[in-house]
Amino acid sequence: MGQAKARGPYSGTPARKAEIVRAARDSFAENGYANASLRDIAERAGITHAGLLHHFRNKDELLTEVLAQRDREEWQQGLAAVEGPEQLAPYLGELIRHHQKAPELMRLWIELAAAASRPDHPAHTYFVERYARGRAQFAEGFPDEAARDALPDGLTPESAAVLFHAVLGGLQLQWVLDQDLDIVGPMNDFVRLLLTRR
Amino acid sequence: MGQAKARGPYSGTPARKAEIVRAARDSFAENGYANASLRDIAERAGITHAGLLHHFRNKDELLTEVLAQRDREEWQQGLAAVEGPEQLAPYLGELIRHHQKAPELMRLWIELAAAASRPDHPAHTYFVERYARGRAQFAEGFPDEAARDALPDGLTPESAAVLFHAVLGGLQLQWVLDQDLDIVGPMNDFVRLLLTRR
Repeated sequence: MGQAKARGPYSGTPARKAEIVRAARDSFAENGYANASLRDIAERAGITHAGLLHHFRNKDELLTEVLAQRDREEWQQGLAAVEGPEQLAPYLGELIRHHQKAPELMRLWIELAAAASRPDHPAHTYFVERYARGRAQFAEGFPDEAARDALPDGLTPESAAVLFHAVLGGLQLQWVLDQDLDIVGPMNDFVRLLLTRR
Repeated sequence: MGQAKARGPYSGTPARKAEIVRAARDSFAENGYANASLRDIAERAGITHAGLLHHFRNKDELLTEVLAQRDREEWQQGLAAVEGPEQLAPYLGELIRHHQKAPELMRLWIELAAAASRPDHPAHTYFVERYARGRAQFAEGFPDEAARDALPDGLTPESAAVLFHAVLGGLQLQWVLDQDLDIVGPMNDFVRLLLTRR
């Protein structure tokens, strides 16, 4: 296994890393984070255990990378394509439904965000920056007086950005606990509240 | 230590349990959940390690009880005292500021809620019921046509209840990651959005 791919430790590194991260995501989603093993992940990626350890020191590092990649793929690219307020609700509905296909990853994301709030956690800086960047990006969607006028009276873009991330995270927390709960409807309601000037 | 209190395993049980739960809360808040030990908790409660194990089998059970008690004290009693929409924002500001005095408990609460979403977790039923009950209680605040008219057009009490819990949880998640962030302001903004009919 992996014989054909063993071309020295530094060849094909980005592709190999991507393959390992994909394998880790599948393994976490299937087994849960606690039960996933580096050996299983290495096997899925067609690489030796030692080969995997060359790229990632431990499961924490892999998890951080899985979540960072999920972010990059599903959030930043997607939100970058949202050009006006009227596209926000359909985009978010799509995003939530996509996340709902992998409840274990959704749960891991929330758990890790809470755990990473401890300053000595390996993913601390990642999560702090990720939220700060997310809020800044959202607030930048209201760059001038005209755009700010889309918000209800007295609501600043900064406060709207905090609320928006609260709703997105808080809805997913409720859904992992009760997967029959409709959260897309409330999300649509929230976007309407946020973007309908009275 | 605890000599005067050792009056047999079944005497004074509720008071003794309450004392242990208080000791556990202090220990978790001071040391973090992972670093807290049953021995330290027993010592704080003035009881032997074996005596503690008579009441609680393990740290998970203690944590669930600490959080359940935090809920009972700070949420249900408090929300029960809210008699009209205009009291909601001040009450919530108070609640958040109270939680902010114990960031470690706030973090534990979020982590445990996410972990407990796994059906085999010891606190699964507690959290599922706790959220369902919280949503139902909130929705019951809008019992008739007149009360529902306080909500913005098209927003049902049920959807408002889901959003309300999302915001409360999601704001605290952001705050444990960045304790300089103002979340009371956005909470006030949200209550205003929710309860101002356009």
